[in-house]
Amino acid sequence: MNLEGVFPPIPTPFSGDSIDHTSLAANVSRWMQTRLAGLVVLGSNGEAPLLEDGEADAVIETVRAHVPRNRTLIGGVGRESTAGTIAAAKRAARIGVDVALVRTPSFYKNVMTSDAFVRYYTAVADASPVPVLLYNVSMFTGVNLMPEAVERLASHPNIIGMKESNADLVQLAETIARTPEHFVVFGGSAPTFYHALCAGADGGVLAISGVIPDICVEMFELVRKQRHAEALALQRRITPLGRLLGAMHGVAGLKYALDQIGFVGGPTRAPLGTVPPEAQKQIREQLAALGTLATK
Amino acid sequence: MNLEGVFPPIPTPFSGDSIDHTSLAANVSRWMQTRLAGLVVLGSNGEAPLLEDGEADAVIETVRAHVPRNRTLIGGVGRESTAGTIAAAKRAARIGVDVALVRTPSFYKNVMTSDAFVRYYTAVADASPVPVLLYNVSMFTGVNLMPEAVERLASHPNIIGMKESNADLVQLAETIARTPEHFVVFGGSAPTFYHALCAGADGGVLAISGVIPDICVEMFELVRKQRHAEALALQRRITPLGRLLGAMHGVAGLKYALDQIGFVGGPTRAPLGTVPPEAQKQIREQLAALGTLATK
Amino acid sequence: MNLEGVFPPIPTPFSGDSIDHTSLAANVSRWMQTRLAGLVVLGSNGEAPLLEDGEADAVIETVRAHVPRNRTLIGGVGRESTAGTIAAAKRAARIGVDVALVRTPSFYKNVMTSDAFVRYYTAVADASPVPVLLYNVSMFTGVNLMPEAVERLASHPNIIGMKESNADLVQLAETIARTPEHFVVFGGSAPTFYHALCAGADGGVLAISGVIPDICVEMFELVRKQRHAEALALQRRITPLGRLLGAMHGVAGLKYALDQIGFVGGPTRAPLGTVPPEAQKQIREQLAALGTLATK
Amino acid sequence: MNLEGVFPPIPTPFSGDSIDHTSLAANVSRWMQTRLAGLVVLGSNGEAPLLEDGEADAVIETVRAHVPRNRTLIGGVGRESTAGTIAAAKRAARIGVDVALVRTPSFYKNVMTSDAFVRYYTAVADASPVPVLLYNVSMFTGVNLMPEAVERLASHPNIIGMKESNADLVQLAETIARTPEHFVVFGGSAPTFYHALCAGADGGVLAISGVIPDICVEMFELVRKQRHAEALALQRRITPLGRLLGAMHGVAGLKYALDQIGFVGGPTRAPLGTVPPEAQKQIREQLAALGTLATK
Repeated sequence: MNLEGVFPPIPTPFSGDSIDHTSLAANVSRWMQTRLAGLVVLGSNGEAPLLEDGEADAVIETVRAHVPRNRTLIGGVGRESTAGTIAAAKRAARIGVDVALVRTPSFYKNVMTSDAFVRYYTAVADASPVPVLLYNVSMFTGVNLMPEAVERLASHPNIIGMKESNADLVQLAETIARTPEHFVVFGGSAPTFYHALCAGADGGVLAISGVIPDICVEMFELVRKQRHAEALALQRRITPLGRLLGAMHGVAGLKYALDQIGFVGGPTRAPLGTVPPEAQKQIREQLAALGTLATK
Repeated sequence: MNLEGVFPPIPTPFSGDSIDHTSLAANVSRWMQTRLAGLVVLGSNGEAPLLEDGEADAVIETVRAHVPRNRTLIGGVGRESTAGTIAAAKRAARIGVDVALVRTPSFYKNVMTSDAFVRYYTAVADASPVPVLLYNVSMFTGVNLMPEAVERLASHPNIIGMKESNADLVQLAETIARTPEHFVVFGGSAPTFYHALCAGADGGVLAISGVIPDICVEMFELVRKQRHAEALALQRRITPLGRLLGAMHGVAGLKYALDQIGFVGGPTRAPLGTVPPEAQKQIREQLAALGTLATK
Repeated sequence: MNLEGVFPPIPTPFSGDSIDHTSLAANVSRWMQTRLAGLVVLGSNGEAPLLEDGEADAVIETVRAHVPRNRTLIGGVGRESTAGTIAAAKRAARIGVDVALVRTPSFYKNVMTSDAFVRYYTAVADASPVPVLLYNVSMFTGVNLMPEAVERLASHPNIIGMKESNADLVQLAETIARTPEHFVVFGGSAPTFYHALCAGADGGVLAISGVIPDICVEMFELVRKQRHAEALALQRRITPLGRLLGAMHGVAGLKYALDQIGFVGGPTRAPLGTVPPEAQKQIREQLAALGTLATK
Repeated sequence: MNLEGVFPPIPTPFSGDSIDHTSLAANVSRWMQTRLAGLVVLGSNGEAPLLEDGEADAVIETVRAHVPRNRTLIGGVGRESTAGTIAAAKRAARIGVDVALVRTPSFYKNVMTSDAFVRYYTAVADASPVPVLLYNVSMFTGVNLMPEAVERLASHPNIIGMKESNADLVQLAETIARTPEHFVVFGGSAPTFYHALCAGADGGVLAISGVIPDICVEMFELVRKQRHAEALALQRRITPLGRLLGAMHGVAGLKYALDQIGFVGGPTRAPLGTVPPEAQKQIREQLAALGTLATK
């Protein structure tokens, strides 16, 4: 199973109240023609918290049908309750994900200590039929999975790595330093992707890699070849788009960008909304600056 | 419908993996013998985010059967998606809640602006068969429903009020000042209950009121009678317990306290855990200081 | 020495690069014709951190000359170093302040623990010829003097009380509950003045009380008389101005407001600037709404 | 003037209430035997906020006497008032600093906007006889000098660069991207020094470089030679000490470490305290792990 390189966390296209499986399949097939290492389905960018369980299962089924077995399919299964997460992991594994991506539970923030996270992830990893990838994204969860907890979890045989979407490079570097070589760490923040690779990350799970896969893969490879100056220059080119599709406009921004370049982004599900006109203009400008609008 | 006074947000007792409906019914019957104005079911203290939809419906059914019609039953129905919340509100109304308590959606924090909240609550209130109570609890959600949004929402005919669980008195006071007289505002933070009443709150939704209902109701009435010095003295007596069962130990603390005084608290559902031994001691000490252990 | 009631933290008028002692004296004389309990000189609103030591001494001298002995003159003497604070306290006492107001040192935030604050204030109080008033203002200092530290300090014979300028009512209430009856606690945040009085505060040190002394004194007295509804109504009237002259525009706002009603506010010292035109309009509107512009 | 490489922000040794100039001179002479590019005097680690103006001037004089003209002497001159900073810059220039390091003023945090910072630094740079280095250190100041402000200031002919002590790599990368090639950016956080160099920083101002100058210079040179793997390995070795002497124990930690290796650290000035015994042990362990204790 390949766990190095760049993975896009893909959005879920909707048609009215339903999932648009035809467009989802078309998107996936097109991504599979690039050098992306695989896909992440039902992550934050997949609007997973807004889907019903049956919808989530159907999404995985459609995506798996179009991701060849030599690419890695990572599927989000995190729920607030331990039992809910385990049930989702079992269903996802049966349908065919290679790896279960498990977001930190976060509602009861005041009691989500490192000990609580270790208990939670241990229970999930014990029960999951497929390997578990930890997932820390404080921007959405408001909690933080600290390096000391990750260090303890890294020794579990069914926990293979972590997606660290926070932009805190100090914490990322410490997590990498405190976990074994084989423990995979993905950077999940586009504006710090180059910096995460410098710090020793094994790859990236980046929303913008669904929009500009070649550039993201190229940056990854430049760092591998120790061509840092070129990689940093690329990072500077992609940072503005990374921000627009990340902290600033999130899923709606990602969907809007995909719509501009021939993928199907489509509408978000409420309460998510749309991208304001001024931001649409900024996104199109960045796409043009990156040479991506030409592919339309 | 009575919306003044004190309401306990009740916990959900479990027996193994299932809900313990017998104990739930017994607890409710006992609370109904006090001067509590009603109950809140499926709030944060009800572990609502950890329940399946079917479980949630069953909880409401059991509780409704034991809450007389002249007491107000408020039921939590918030989900992350607008559609999910509306569906839950319809089910809860059919089963018999008098008021739908709707927590702010919070996963996509970066785009949860006041405009987004106004759109969300308007859609929910338009569709809900029963009146809607806004619910702001930043300690758990990491987002904040600002007075300017509440002011706009207060004119909706199906939005009757708000449960403000934040301890920020400046914000609470502004919310009250910017909404009409008939708009109900509940304080939801025990350590600031007296202060919220001073600021003009109409009542409280307080976890500790399930444990010390008489004291909480007494404080409410003292303020009504302008006997502030006595009310403040009572507040000081209950603040330590309020903290222990609130920010410090949350649901596990509340359940532990109930177990000490003859209600059924029981275990929490994972990933929630238990109260550390030292905190158990502190809770028992506070219960003793409040004269509650004698009721066991 | 009177330490109950309302004290304005007065600004320092400048003329070019120098202190305008004539205007300072005129302002003070006028304030002394109201029912204000005294004055605070060289607080945050006095631009104390922007003055040289010699300037600060001269300011105290001018003010003392116009504050009769039966009113209390509180003077700010906080510096970053313990030795600097002690030296300033000795000078201020010699010139004639009744009480030394000592802000938390705050530059080395990471080591400013409760123990460090207790050591600091103990050393200052041991050496100060006049009683010490603790001063917590996290909005400016970025550190927080916690109730547990205040509790320890309250037993020092030369520490008479605290000015708590944070708006956190929970913390204020805890500070009051953990300190003896004779320990004076002033609220220092205008938007929560009524709430602080409800919580048991002995008075207020409020920037707006230099602008609307009668209203502030009236609110204080209404609470003393248990006429809470009227006090709360007054609070609502003054909150907008309190915000404009507090967190929003600070010293520049206060000086602008004073200029509108016949006191001398005048320019701030750089790097402080001026109030934007739109905010000037808002301040004038609030002054008019409070009936203060008529006094011009 | 050399502005590339590694500069230690040196502490100020005290003997009782006075500055120990003999030890200061001895320390400086010893640092000048290493490959450090120069020194920073009167930075945060120099306890500058705790010194009187006369003391500060004397410190610069002693240090300048022992720093050869071909090494760069950077001197901290930041005060809260614009006029105070300008006066300090003029004195420091006259005594002999090559560059004036100017910390953001920070007391009146609520009005320290980008516009305010641009006005402040422009006034200081207009008046300073020597080039100005901006200095951002939110951990101590609680304010943040944003890239958009730095971009505007970078065009001033007397502003040559910036010391960015925050650990936020995203912000550092943006600052570098928005400023001209000749604008010097120093990283000021030891745990992110390698990451800052990757992001394009020109050097570092690191407290630990006074303790382990050779290792810090070596890391700087490794990155210059594109030997990233070795540089990252070195970073991991120094991060624990960087934390102990930075966010955890600050100046007291730095002074303790220097005392262990034959420099004179000595006591801090109150309200700063000492390093707890357990932390002393951790510091000694890290020094031993880095081979530095052998130099004693």
